[in-house]
Amino acid sequence: MGDATKDPVDFTVTVVGLGLMGGSLAGALRGKCRRVIGVDRDASTSACALELGFVDEVAQNLSAGLERADVVVLATPVRAIIDILGRIGPMLQPGTLVMDIGSTKTQVLAAMDDLPTYVQVLGGHPMCGKELSGIAAADPTLFDGRTFILSPLARTSDAALATGHALVRAVGAHPLEIEGTRQDYLVGTISHLPYLLACALVSTADATTSSDPLVWQILAGGYRDTSRVAGSDVTMMVDILMTNRDEVVKAARICQAHLAELTSLVEAGNEAALRARLSDIRNTRKEMYP
Amino acid sequence: MGDATKDPVDFTVTVVGLGLMGGSLAGALRGKCRRVIGVDRDASTSACALELGFVDEVAQNLSAGLERADVVVLATPVRAIIDILGRIGPMLQPGTLVMDIGSTKTQVLAAMDDLPTYVQVLGGHPMCGKELSGIAAADPTLFDGRTFILSPLARTSDAALATGHALVRAVGAHPLEIEGTRQDYLVGTISHLPYLLACALVSTADATTSSDPLVWQILAGGYRDTSRVAGSDVTMMVDILMTNRDEVVKAARICQAHLAELTSLVEAGNEAALRARLSDIRNTRKEMYP
Repeated sequence: MGDATKDPVDFTVTVVGLGLMGGSLAGALRGKCRRVIGVDRDASTSACALELGFVDEVAQNLSAGLERADVVVLATPVRAIIDILGRIGPMLQPGTLVMDIGSTKTQVLAAMDDLPTYVQVLGGHPMCGKELSGIAAADPTLFDGRTFILSPLARTSDAALATGHALVRAVGAHPLEIEGTRQDYLVGTISHLPYLLACALVSTADATTSSDPLVWQILAGGYRDTSRVAGSDVTMMVDILMTNRDEVVKAARICQAHLAELTSLVEAGNEAALRARLSDIRNTRKEMYP
Repeated sequence: MGDATKDPVDFTVTVVGLGLMGGSLAGALRGKCRRVIGVDRDASTSACALELGFVDEVAQNLSAGLERADVVVLATPVRAIIDILGRIGPMLQPGTLVMDIGSTKTQVLAAMDDLPTYVQVLGGHPMCGKELSGIAAADPTLFDGRTFILSPLARTSDAALATGHALVRAVGAHPLEIEGTRQDYLVGTISHLPYLLACALVSTADATTSSDPLVWQILAGGYRDTSRVAGSDVTMMVDILMTNRDEVVKAARICQAHLAELTSLVEAGNEAALRARLSDIRNTRKEMYP
Protein backbone atom coordinates (compact mmCIF):
# COMPACT_ATOMS: atom_id res chain seq x y z
CA MET A 1 0.00 0.00 0.00
CA GLY A 2 1.33 3.41 -0.93
CA ASP A 3 1.98 5.70 2.00
CA ALA A 4 2.94 9.23 1.13
CA THR A 5 2.83 10.38 4.76
CA LYS A 6 6.16 8.73 5.54
CA ASP A 7 9.42 10.63 5.99
CA PRO A 8 11.03 11.54 2.63
CA VAL A 9 13.89 9.12 3.17
CA ASP A 10 11.38 6.29 3.33
CA PHE A 11 9.63 7.06 0.03
CA THR A 12 9.71 4.82 -2.95
CA VAL A 13 9.29 7.22 -5.87
CA THR A 14 8.41 6.08 -9.37
CA VAL A 15 9.23 8.54 -12.14
CA VAL A 16 7.30 7.98 -15.35
CA GLY A 17 9.07 9.40 -18.40
CA LEU A 18 12.87 9.60 -18.24
CA GLY A 19 13.62 12.45 -20.60
CA LEU A 20 15.39 15.69 -19.72
CA MET A 21 13.03 16.56 -16.86
CA GLY A 22 12.12 13.11 -15.55
CA GLY A 23 15.70 11.85 -15.80
CA SER A 24 16.95 14.92 -13.95
CA LEU A 25 14.30 14.55 -11.24
CA ALA A 26 15.06 10.85 -10.78
CA GLY A 27 18.77 11.59 -10.51
CA ALA A 28 18.13 14.40 -8.02
CA LEU A 29 15.95 12.13 -5.87
CA ARG A 30 18.20 9.10 -5.91
CA GLY A 31 19.89 8.64 -2.56
CA LYS A 32 17.46 11.15 -0.99
CA CYS A 33 14.66 8.60 -0.77
CA ARG A 34 14.49 4.87 -0.24
CA ARG A 35 14.21 3.88 -3.85
CA VAL A 36 13.76 5.53 -7.24
CA ILE A 37 12.04 3.40 -9.86
CA GLY A 38 12.10 4.56 -13.47
CA VAL A 39 9.55 3.84 -16.18
CA ASP A 40 9.88 4.77 -19.83
CA ARG A 41 8.14 3.35 -22.88
CA ASP A 42 11.57 3.27 -24.55
CA ALA A 43 13.63 0.41 -23.06
CA SER A 44 16.94 1.95 -24.14
CA THR A 45 16.06 5.18 -22.29
CA SER A 46 15.37 3.16 -19.12
CA ALA A 47 18.63 1.27 -19.58
CA CYS A 48 20.50 4.55 -19.98
CA ALA A 49 18.90 6.00 -16.81
CA LEU A 50 20.03 2.91 -14.91
CA GLU A 51 23.52 3.10 -16.41
CA LEU A 52 23.81 6.80 -15.48
CA GLY A 53 22.78 5.99 -11.91
CA PHE A 54 19.64 8.16 -12.04
CA VAL A 55 17.37 5.32 -10.86
CA ASP A 56 17.75 2.36 -8.50
CA GLU A 57 15.82 0.14 -10.85
CA VAL A 58 13.65 0.25 -13.91
CA ALA A 59 10.17 -1.23 -14.21
CA GLN A 60 9.22 -3.17 -17.32
CA ASN A 61 5.87 -1.44 -17.63
CA LEU A 62 3.72 1.24 -16.03
CA SER A 63 1.75 -1.18 -13.87
CA ALA A 64 4.89 -2.76 -12.43
CA GLY A 65 6.35 0.67 -11.78
CA LEU A 66 3.30 1.88 -9.90
CA GLU A 67 2.59 -1.01 -7.63
CA ARG A 68 5.37 -0.32 -5.09
CA ALA A 69 5.32 3.48 -5.30
CA ASP A 70 4.55 5.78 -2.39
CA VAL A 71 4.88 8.71 -4.79
CA VAL A 72 4.42 8.64 -8.56
CA VAL A 73 5.76 11.55 -10.60
CA LEU A 74 4.53 11.83 -14.19
CA ALA A 75 7.26 13.52 -16.24
CA THR A 76 6.17 13.06 -19.86
CA PRO A 77 4.90 15.81 -22.17
CA VAL A 78 1.67 17.32 -20.80
CA ARG A 79 -0.84 15.51 -23.01
CA ALA A 80 0.87 12.19 -22.32
CA ILE A 81 0.50 13.00 -18.60
CA ILE A 82 -3.22 13.54 -19.14
CA ASP A 83 -3.48 10.30 -21.10
CA ILE A 84 -1.63 8.34 -18.41
CA LEU A 85 -3.83 9.85 -15.67
CA GLY A 86 -6.84 8.51 -17.54
CA ARG A 87 -5.44 4.96 -17.47
CA ILE A 88 -3.63 4.45 -14.16
CA GLY A 89 -6.52 4.62 -11.67
CA PRO A 90 -6.91 0.83 -11.45
CA MET A 91 -3.13 0.30 -11.15
CA LEU A 92 -2.61 2.54 -8.11
CA GLN A 93 -2.40 1.40 -4.50
CA PRO A 94 -4.54 3.25 -1.95
CA GLY A 95 -2.68 6.16 -0.37
CA THR A 96 -0.25 6.66 -3.25
CA LEU A 97 0.50 10.29 -4.08
CA VAL A 98 0.32 11.07 -7.79
CA MET A 99 2.22 14.18 -8.91
CA ASP A 100 3.32 15.58 -12.26
CA ILE A 101 5.89 18.10 -13.48
CA GLY A 102 4.13 19.42 -16.59
CA SER A 103 4.28 23.11 -17.53
CA THR A 104 0.51 23.60 -17.64
CA LYS A 105 -1.79 22.70 -14.79
CA THR A 106 -5.50 23.29 -15.50
CA GLN A 107 -6.09 20.26 -17.71
CA VAL A 108 -3.67 18.07 -15.74
CA LEU A 109 -5.45 18.87 -12.47
CA ALA A 110 -8.84 18.11 -14.03
CA ALA A 111 -7.53 14.67 -15.06
CA MET A 112 -6.05 14.14 -11.58
CA ASP A 113 -9.41 14.95 -10.05
CA ASP A 114 -10.91 11.97 -11.90
CA LEU A 115 -8.55 9.51 -10.16
CA PRO A 116 -10.04 7.25 -7.44
CA THR A 117 -10.57 9.08 -4.14
CA TYR A 118 -8.30 6.60 -2.34
CA VAL A 119 -5.20 8.11 -3.99
CA GLN A 120 -3.73 11.55 -3.34
CA VAL A 121 -3.00 14.08 -6.10
CA LEU A 122 -0.79 17.18 -6.41
CA GLY A 123 0.22 19.18 -9.46
CA GLY A 124 3.83 20.33 -9.84
CA HIS A 125 5.90 22.50 -12.17
CA PRO A 126 9.61 23.11 -11.63
CA MET A 127 10.67 26.48 -13.10
CA CYS A 128 13.74 25.23 -14.90
CA GLY A 129 14.65 23.47 -18.11
CA LYS A 130 17.04 23.43 -21.03
CA GLU A 131 16.77 23.81 -24.77
CA LEU A 132 17.96 20.20 -24.99
CA SER A 133 15.91 17.06 -24.53
CA GLY A 134 16.27 13.40 -23.65
CA ILE A 135 18.03 11.44 -20.94
CA ALA A 136 21.45 12.40 -22.35
CA ALA A 137 20.74 16.04 -21.37
CA ALA A 138 19.42 15.14 -17.90
CA ASP A 139 21.20 16.77 -14.97
CA PRO A 140 20.40 16.03 -11.31
CA THR A 141 21.44 19.59 -10.35
CA LEU A 142 18.80 21.12 -12.67
CA PHE A 143 16.49 22.00 -9.75
CA ASP A 144 19.13 23.54 -7.46
CA GLY A 145 17.79 26.78 -6.02
CA ARG A 146 14.91 26.98 -8.50
CA THR A 147 11.26 27.59 -7.72
CA PHE A 148 9.10 24.46 -7.93
CA ILE A 149 5.40 25.28 -8.20
CA LEU A 150 2.96 23.02 -6.37
CA SER A 151 -0.72 23.19 -7.27
CA PRO A 152 -2.90 21.33 -4.77
CA LEU A 153 -6.52 20.38 -5.48
CA ALA A 154 -9.39 20.69 -3.01
CA ARG A 155 -9.06 16.95 -2.37
CA THR A 156 -5.31 17.11 -1.65
CA SER A 157 -4.68 16.26 2.02
CA ASP A 158 -2.34 18.27 4.23
CA ALA A 159 -0.13 15.20 4.55
CA ALA A 160 0.11 14.78 0.76
CA LEU A 161 0.94 18.47 0.36
CA ALA A 162 3.65 18.12 3.02
CA THR A 163 5.05 15.17 1.07
CA GLY A 164 5.14 17.32 -2.06
CA HIS A 165 7.06 20.02 -0.18
CA ALA A 166 9.50 17.42 1.15
CA LEU A 167 10.10 16.02 -2.33
CA VAL A 168 10.72 19.50 -3.76
CA ARG A 169 13.20 20.29 -1.01
CA ALA A 170 14.88 16.92 -1.51
CA VAL A 171 15.82 17.92 -5.08
CA GLY A 172 17.17 21.29 -3.90
CA ALA A 173 14.27 23.46 -5.07
CA HIS A 174 11.96 25.93 -3.29
CA PRO A 175 8.27 24.96 -3.19
CA LEU A 176 5.73 27.65 -4.06
CA GLU A 177 2.01 26.92 -3.92
CA ILE A 178 -0.02 28.41 -6.77
CA GLU A 179 -3.54 27.46 -7.77
CA GLY A 180 -3.66 25.82 -11.22
CA THR A 181 -5.43 28.46 -13.33
CA ARG A 182 -3.35 31.23 -11.77
CA GLN A 183 -0.13 29.35 -12.58
CA ASP A 184 -1.25 28.84 -16.18
CA TYR A 185 -1.92 32.57 -16.50
CA LEU A 186 1.50 33.46 -15.07
CA VAL A 187 3.58 30.96 -17.04
CA GLY A 188 1.65 31.85 -20.22
CA THR A 189 3.49 35.20 -20.08
CA ILE A 190 6.67 34.27 -18.21
CA SER A 191 7.51 31.00 -19.92
CA HIS A 192 5.37 30.20 -22.97
CA LEU A 193 5.39 33.69 -24.52
CA PRO A 194 9.23 33.84 -24.47
CA TYR A 195 9.19 30.59 -26.45
CA LEU A 196 6.90 32.08 -29.12
CA LEU A 197 9.04 35.23 -29.29
CA ALA A 198 12.21 33.20 -29.68
CA CYS A 199 10.52 31.21 -32.46
CA ALA A 200 9.31 34.38 -34.20
CA LEU A 201 12.85 35.78 -34.08
CA VAL A 202 14.45 32.66 -35.56
CA SER A 203 11.67 32.48 -38.14
CA THR A 204 12.27 36.12 -39.12
CA ALA A 205 16.01 35.64 -39.47
CA ASP A 206 15.42 32.46 -41.46
CA ALA A 207 13.08 34.28 -43.85
CA THR A 208 15.35 37.30 -44.37
CA THR A 209 18.98 37.66 -43.33
CA SER A 210 19.77 33.92 -43.32
CA SER A 211 20.09 34.04 -47.11
CA ASP A 212 23.20 36.20 -46.59
CA PRO A 213 26.09 33.83 -45.85
CA LEU A 214 27.82 36.45 -43.68
CA VAL A 215 25.00 36.42 -41.15
CA TRP A 216 26.19 33.10 -39.78
CA GLN A 217 29.44 34.73 -38.73
CA ILE A 218 27.84 37.59 -36.82
CA LEU A 219 25.21 35.81 -34.73
CA ALA A 220 25.91 37.70 -31.54
CA GLY A 221 25.13 37.09 -27.90
CA GLY A 222 21.89 39.06 -27.96
CA TYR A 223 20.47 36.89 -30.71
CA ARG A 224 21.78 33.72 -29.11
CA ASP A 225 20.11 34.41 -25.77
CA THR A 226 16.88 35.82 -27.16
CA SER A 227 16.47 32.80 -29.45
CA ARG A 228 17.70 30.11 -27.03
CA VAL A 229 14.39 28.56 -26.03
CA ALA A 230 13.40 28.15 -29.70
CA GLY A 231 15.59 25.04 -29.46
CA SER A 232 13.20 23.41 -26.95
CA ASP A 233 11.70 20.00 -27.62
CA VAL A 234 8.83 20.44 -30.07
CA THR A 235 6.52 17.72 -28.71
CA MET A 236 6.86 19.14 -25.22
CA MET A 237 6.13 22.67 -26.47
CA VAL A 238 3.18 21.72 -28.70
CA ASP A 239 1.60 19.97 -25.70
CA ILE A 240 2.18 23.03 -23.54
CA LEU A 241 0.78 25.45 -26.11
CA MET A 242 -2.23 23.23 -26.83
CA THR A 243 -3.10 22.91 -23.13
CA ASN A 244 -2.67 26.62 -22.36
CA ARG A 245 -4.08 28.11 -25.55
CA ASP A 246 -6.21 30.87 -24.06
CA GLU A 247 -3.50 32.30 -21.85
CA VAL A 248 -0.77 31.96 -24.47
CA VAL A 249 -2.85 33.62 -27.17
CA LYS A 250 -3.86 36.44 -24.82
CA ALA A 251 -0.24 37.08 -23.80
CA ALA A 252 0.98 36.91 -27.40
CA ARG A 253 -1.63 39.41 -28.58
CA ILE A 254 -0.69 41.85 -25.83
CA CYS A 255 2.99 41.42 -26.69
CA GLN A 256 2.25 42.02 -30.37
CA ALA A 257 0.63 45.31 -29.40
CA HIS A 258 3.62 46.32 -27.29
CA LEU A 259 6.02 45.41 -30.09
CA ALA A 260 3.90 47.35 -32.59
CA GLU A 261 3.92 50.36 -30.29
CA LEU A 262 7.71 50.29 -29.88
CA THR A 263 8.14 49.84 -33.64
CA SER A 264 5.88 52.81 -34.33
CA LEU A 265 7.91 55.00 -31.98
CA VAL A 266 11.07 54.01 -33.88
CA GLU A 267 9.39 54.58 -37.24
CA ALA A 268 8.07 57.99 -36.23
CA GLY A 269 11.44 58.95 -34.77
CA ASN A 270 9.55 59.87 -31.61
CA GLU A 271 12.70 59.90 -29.59
CA ALA A 272 11.45 61.36 -26.32
CA ALA A 273 8.63 58.83 -26.02
CA LEU A 274 10.90 55.99 -27.13
CA ARG A 275 13.54 56.90 -24.57
CA ALA A 276 10.93 57.10 -21.81
CA ARG A 277 9.45 53.68 -22.70
CA LEU A 278 12.86 51.99 -23.01
CA SER A 279 13.99 53.49 -19.70
CA ASP A 280 10.87 52.20 -17.94
CA ILE A 281 11.42 48.77 -19.46
CA ARG A 282 15.08 48.72 -18.46
CA ASN A 283 14.14 49.64 -14.90
CA THR A 284 11.50 46.92 -14.79
CA ARG A 285 14.03 44.34 -16.03
CA LYS A 286 16.45 45.47 -13.32
CA GLU A 287 13.79 45.06 -10.65
CA MET A 288 13.12 41.55 -11.92
CA TYR A 289 16.80 40.58 -11.78
CA PRO A 290 18.39 42.89 -9.18
CA MET B 1 52.31 62.62 -37.83
CA GLY B 2 49.96 59.66 -37.46
CA ASP B 3 51.14 56.53 -39.23
CA ALA B 4 48.67 53.69 -39.27
CA THR B 5 50.84 51.56 -41.55
CA LYS B 6 53.22 50.66 -38.74
CA ASP B 7 53.30 47.27 -37.03
CA PRO B 8 50.52 46.93 -34.41
CA VAL B 9 53.02 46.94 -31.56
CA ASP B 10 54.12 50.39 -32.62
CA PHE B 11 50.65 51.99 -32.66
CA THR B 12 49.58 54.68 -30.34
CA VAL B 13 45.82 54.17 -30.06
CA THR B 14 43.48 56.79 -28.64
CA VAL B 15 40.11 55.48 -27.49
CA VAL B 16 37.41 58.14 -27.25
CA GLY B 17 34.62 57.17 -24.84
CA LEU B 18 35.56 54.85 -21.97
CA GLY B 19 32.27 53.15 -21.22
CA LEU B 20 31.60 49.42 -21.40
CA MET B 21 32.80 49.05 -25.00
CA GLY B 22 35.55 51.68 -25.15
CA GLY B 23 36.91 50.72 -21.74
CA SER B 24 36.97 47.05 -22.74
CA LEU B 25 38.70 47.84 -26.03
CA ALA B 26 41.30 50.01 -24.36
CA GLY B 27 42.00 47.29 -21.81
CA ALA B 28 42.25 44.65 -24.54
CA LEU B 29 44.70 46.79 -26.53
CA ARG B 30 46.88 47.84 -23.63
CA GLY B 31 50.21 46.03 -23.80
CA LYS B 32 49.48 44.93 -27.38
CA CYS B 33 50.40 48.33 -28.81
CA ARG B 34 52.88 51.03 -27.88
CA ARG B 35 50.48 53.20 -25.97
CA VAL B 36 46.77 53.44 -25.25
CA ILE B 37 45.47 56.94 -24.56
CA GLY B 38 41.97 57.32 -23.14
CA VAL B 39 39.62 60.27 -23.58
CA ASP B 40 36.28 60.71 -21.84
CA ARG B 41 34.22 63.82 -21.22
CA ASP B 42 33.77 62.57 -17.65
CA ALA B 43 37.06 63.03 -15.73
CA SER B 44 36.13 60.42 -13.14
CA THR B 45 35.59 57.84 -15.88
CA SER B 46 39.05 58.59 -17.27
CA ALA B 47 40.53 58.34 -13.79
CA CYS B 48 38.84 55.00 -13.26
CA ALA B 49 40.15 53.66 -16.61
CA LEU B 50 43.66 54.66 -15.55
CA GLU B 51 43.20 53.11 -12.11
CA LEU B 52 41.95 49.85 -13.65
CA GLY B 53 44.98 49.77 -15.94
CA PHE B 54 42.90 49.93 -19.14
CA VAL B 55 44.90 52.89 -20.52
CA ASP B 56 48.51 54.04 -20.33
CA GLU B 57 47.43 57.62 -19.92
CA VAL B 58 44.42 59.86 -20.16
CA ALA B 59 44.17 63.00 -22.24
CA GLN B 60 42.56 66.09 -20.79
CA ASN B 61 40.55 66.79 -23.90
CA LEU B 62 39.78 65.43 -27.34
CA SER B 63 42.36 67.53 -29.14
CA ALA B 64 45.15 66.45 -26.78
CA GLY B 65 44.09 62.83 -27.17
CA LEU B 66 44.17 62.95 -30.95
CA GLU B 67 47.44 64.70 -31.61
CA ARG B 68 49.71 61.73 -30.89
CA ALA B 69 47.42 58.98 -32.18
CA ASP B 70 48.25 56.63 -35.04
CA VAL B 71 44.79 55.13 -34.63
CA VAL B 72 41.72 56.80 -33.10
CA VAL B 73 38.81 54.61 -32.07
CA LEU B 74 35.50 56.37 -31.37
CA ALA B 75 33.59 54.33 -28.80
CA THR B 76 30.73 56.57 -27.71
CA PRO B 77 27.03 56.05 -28.57
CA VAL B 78 26.49 56.23 -32.34
CA ARG B 79 25.15 59.77 -32.60
CA ALA B 80 27.96 61.08 -30.40
CA ILE B 81 30.37 59.33 -32.81
CA ILE B 82 28.74 61.19 -35.70
CA ASP B 83 28.93 64.47 -33.79
CA ILE B 84 32.62 63.95 -32.96
CA LEU B 85 33.41 63.04 -36.57
CA GLY B 86 31.93 66.41 -37.58
CA ARG B 87 34.32 68.24 -35.24
CA ILE B 88 37.67 66.43 -35.25
CA GLY B 89 38.87 67.03 -38.82
CA PRO B 90 41.07 70.00 -37.93
CA MET B 91 42.51 68.17 -34.88
CA LEU B 92 43.79 65.11 -36.76
CA GLN B 93 47.34 64.55 -37.96
CA PRO B 94 47.82 63.45 -41.59
CA GLY B 95 47.90 59.68 -41.92
CA THR B 96 45.92 58.97 -38.74
CA LEU B 97 43.41 56.13 -39.02
CA VAL B 98 39.97 57.00 -37.59
CA MET B 99 37.84 54.01 -36.63
CA ASP B 100 34.64 53.56 -34.62
CA ILE B 101 32.89 50.68 -32.88
CA GLY B 102 29.27 51.79 -33.22
CA SER B 103 26.49 49.27 -33.95
CA THR B 104 25.22 51.04 -37.06
CA LYS B 105 27.42 51.98 -39.96
CA THR B 106 25.63 53.86 -42.77
CA GLN B 107 25.43 57.25 -41.07
CA VAL B 108 28.80 56.84 -39.35
CA LEU B 109 30.52 56.06 -42.66
CA ALA B 110 28.88 59.08 -44.31
CA ALA B 111 30.31 61.29 -41.54
CA MET B 112 33.72 59.60 -41.89
CA ASP B 113 33.68 60.32 -45.61
CA ASP B 114 33.50 64.04 -44.82
CA LEU B 115 36.84 63.96 -42.95
CA PRO B 116 39.88 65.49 -44.66
CA THR B 117 41.35 63.23 -47.36
CA TYR B 118 44.71 63.16 -45.57
CA VAL B 119 43.32 60.92 -42.82
CA GLN B 120 42.28 57.30 -43.18
CA VAL B 121 38.85 55.98 -42.15
CA LEU B 122 37.40 52.56 -41.34
CA GLY B 123 34.09 51.58 -39.73
CA GLY B 124 34.04 48.85 -37.09
CA HIS B 125 31.47 46.91 -35.07
CA PRO B 126 32.46 44.18 -32.62
CA MET B 127 29.66 41.60 -32.24
CA CYS B 128 29.66 41.46 -28.48
CA GLY B 129 28.32 43.42 -25.56
CA LYS B 130 26.62 43.16 -22.20
CA GLU B 131 23.38 44.38 -20.70
CA LEU B 132 25.50 46.49 -18.38
CA SER B 133 27.13 49.82 -19.11
CA GLY B 134 29.95 52.05 -17.96
CA ILE B 135 33.63 51.57 -17.19
CA ALA B 136 32.81 49.44 -14.14
CA ALA B 137 31.37 46.77 -16.46
CA ALA B 138 34.30 46.93 -18.90
CA ASP B 139 36.15 43.66 -19.51
CA PRO B 140 39.27 43.35 -21.70
CA THR B 141 38.30 39.76 -22.60
CA LEU B 142 34.97 40.92 -24.10
CA PHE B 143 36.22 40.49 -27.68
CA ASP B 144 37.81 37.05 -27.27
CA GLY B 145 36.83 34.86 -30.18
CA ARG B 146 34.05 37.21 -31.33
CA THR B 147 33.45 38.50 -34.83
CA PHE B 148 34.50 42.13 -35.34
CA ILE B 149 32.94 43.67 -38.42
CA LEU B 150 35.07 46.08 -40.46
CA SER B 151 33.37 48.31 -43.01
CA PRO B 152 35.86 50.04 -45.31
CA LEU B 153 34.95 53.01 -47.49
CA ALA B 154 36.05 53.49 -51.10
CA ARG B 155 38.72 55.87 -49.83
CA THR B 156 40.11 53.41 -47.25
CA SER B 157 43.65 52.38 -48.26
CA ASP B 158 44.84 48.77 -48.19
CA ALA B 159 47.34 49.72 -45.51
CA ALA B 160 44.64 51.26 -43.31
CA LEU B 161 42.45 48.18 -43.76
CA ALA B 162 45.43 45.98 -42.80
CA THR B 163 45.85 48.10 -39.67
CA GLY B 164 42.19 47.57 -38.82
CA HIS B 165 42.63 43.81 -39.18
CA ALA B 166 45.73 43.89 -36.98
CA LEU B 167 43.90 45.88 -34.30
CA VAL B 168 40.97 43.45 -34.33
CA ARG B 169 43.30 40.47 -34.00
CA ALA B 170 45.20 42.24 -31.23
CA VAL B 171 42.04 42.26 -29.07
CA GLY B 172 41.43 38.56 -29.77
CA ALA B 173 38.57 38.98 -32.26
CA HIS B 174 38.05 37.78 -35.85
CA PRO B 175 37.80 40.51 -38.50
CA LEU B 176 34.98 40.23 -41.05
CA GLU B 177 34.60 42.81 -43.81
CA ILE B 178 31.02 43.84 -44.55
CA GLU B 179 29.91 46.87 -46.50
CA GLY B 180 28.05 49.40 -44.33
CA THR B 181 24.48 49.16 -45.63
CA ARG B 182 24.67 45.37 -45.73
CA GLN B 183 25.86 45.28 -42.11
CA ASP B 184 23.01 47.57 -41.04
CA TYR B 185 20.51 45.26 -42.74
CA LEU B 186 22.00 42.18 -41.05
CA VAL B 187 22.32 43.60 -37.53
CA GLY B 188 18.84 45.13 -37.81
CA THR B 189 17.53 41.56 -37.61
CA ILE B 190 20.30 39.82 -35.67
CA SER B 191 20.99 42.42 -33.01
CA HIS B 192 18.48 45.30 -32.93
CA LEU B 193 15.31 43.22 -33.37
CA PRO B 194 16.21 40.95 -30.39
CA TYR B 195 16.43 44.11 -28.31
CA LEU B 196 12.92 45.23 -29.33
CA LEU B 197 11.55 41.72 -28.67
CA ALA B 198 13.15 41.61 -25.24
CA CYS B 199 11.64 45.04 -24.50
CA ALA B 200 8.19 43.95 -25.74
CA LEU B 201 8.38 40.89 -23.47
CA VAL B 202 9.33 42.87 -20.36
CA SER B 203 6.70 45.47 -21.24
CA THR B 204 4.04 42.75 -21.57
CA ALA B 205 4.95 41.15 -18.26
CA ASP B 206 4.99 44.56 -16.62
CA ALA B 207 1.50 45.36 -17.93
CA THR B 208 -0.04 42.02 -16.96
CA THR B 209 1.48 39.35 -14.72
CA SER B 210 3.74 41.70 -12.76
CA SER B 211 0.77 42.78 -10.68
CA ASP B 212 0.72 39.23 -9.23
CA PRO B 213 3.33 39.14 -6.46
CA LEU B 214 4.00 35.45 -7.09
CA VAL B 215 5.36 36.14 -10.57
CA TRP B 216 8.59 37.46 -9.10
CA GLN B 217 9.30 34.06 -7.63
CA ILE B 218 8.84 32.13 -10.86
CA LEU B 219 10.86 34.18 -13.34
CA ALA B 220 12.50 31.24 -15.04
CA GLY B 221 15.56 30.86 -17.24
CA GLY B 222 13.60 31.21 -20.48
CA TYR B 223 12.29 34.60 -19.47
CA ARG B 224 15.64 35.70 -18.09
CA ASP B 225 17.50 34.91 -21.32
CA THR B 226 14.83 36.15 -23.71
CA SER B 227 14.59 39.46 -21.82
CA ARG B 228 18.31 39.93 -21.08
CA VAL B 229 19.16 42.58 -23.66
CA ALA B 230 16.23 44.75 -22.49
CA GLY B 231 18.70 45.78 -19.77
CA SER B 232 21.01 47.43 -22.32
CA ASP B 233 22.01 51.07 -21.96
CA VAL B 234 19.13 53.22 -23.20
CA THR B 235 21.16 56.05 -24.74
CA MET B 236 23.23 53.55 -26.69
CA MET B 237 20.10 51.76 -27.90
CA VAL B 238 18.14 54.91 -28.82
CA ASP B 239 21.11 56.04 -30.93
CA ILE B 240 21.25 52.65 -32.62
CA LEU B 241 17.52 52.53 -33.32
CA MET B 242 17.46 56.13 -34.57
CA THR B 243 20.36 55.53 -36.97
CA ASN B 244 19.01 52.23 -38.33
CA ARG B 245 15.31 53.04 -38.42
CA ASP B 246 14.42 51.63 -41.82
CA GLU B 247 16.05 48.24 -41.26
CA VAL B 248 14.82 47.92 -37.68
CA VAL B 249 11.24 48.80 -38.59
CA LYS B 250 11.28 46.42 -41.55
CA ALA B 251 12.63 43.55 -39.41
CA ALA B 252 10.15 44.29 -36.61
CA ARG B 253 7.18 44.29 -39.00
CA ILE B 254 8.24 40.95 -40.46
CA CYS B 255 8.70 39.54 -36.97
CA GLN B 256 5.25 40.80 -35.95
CA ALA B 257 3.80 38.89 -38.89
CA HIS B 258 5.65 35.72 -37.90
CA LEU B 259 4.51 36.06 -34.29
CA ALA B 260 0.93 36.67 -35.43
CA GLU B 261 1.08 33.57 -37.63
CA LEU B 262 2.38 31.38 -34.79
CA THR B 263 -0.25 32.82 -32.44
CA SER B 264 -3.02 32.08 -34.96
CA LEU B 265 -1.86 28.48 -35.27
CA VAL B 266 -2.05 28.13 -31.48
CA GLU B 267 -5.44 29.84 -31.35
CA ALA B 268 -6.88 27.66 -34.12
CA GLY B 269 -5.44 24.52 -32.52
CA ASN B 270 -3.90 23.76 -35.90
CA GLU B 271 -1.53 21.28 -34.39
CA ALA B 272 -0.06 19.71 -37.53
CA ALA B 273 0.90 23.08 -39.02
CA LEU B 274 2.16 24.35 -35.65
CA ARG B 275 4.33 21.28 -35.14
CA ALA B 276 5.77 21.59 -38.64
CA ARG B 277 6.61 25.29 -38.14
CA LEU B 278 8.14 24.78 -34.70
CA SER B 279 10.21 21.84 -35.97
CA ASP B 280 11.56 23.92 -38.85
CA ILE B 281 12.39 26.73 -36.44
CA ARG B 282 14.11 24.37 -34.02
CA ASN B 283 16.21 22.92 -36.84
CA THR B 284 17.16 26.42 -38.02
CA ARG B 285 18.23 27.39 -34.50
CA LYS B 286 20.33 24.21 -34.30
CA GLU B 287 22.04 25.04 -37.59
CA MET B 288 22.82 28.51 -36.25
CA TYR B 289 24.37 27.14 -33.04
CA PRO B 290 25.54 23.61 -33.88
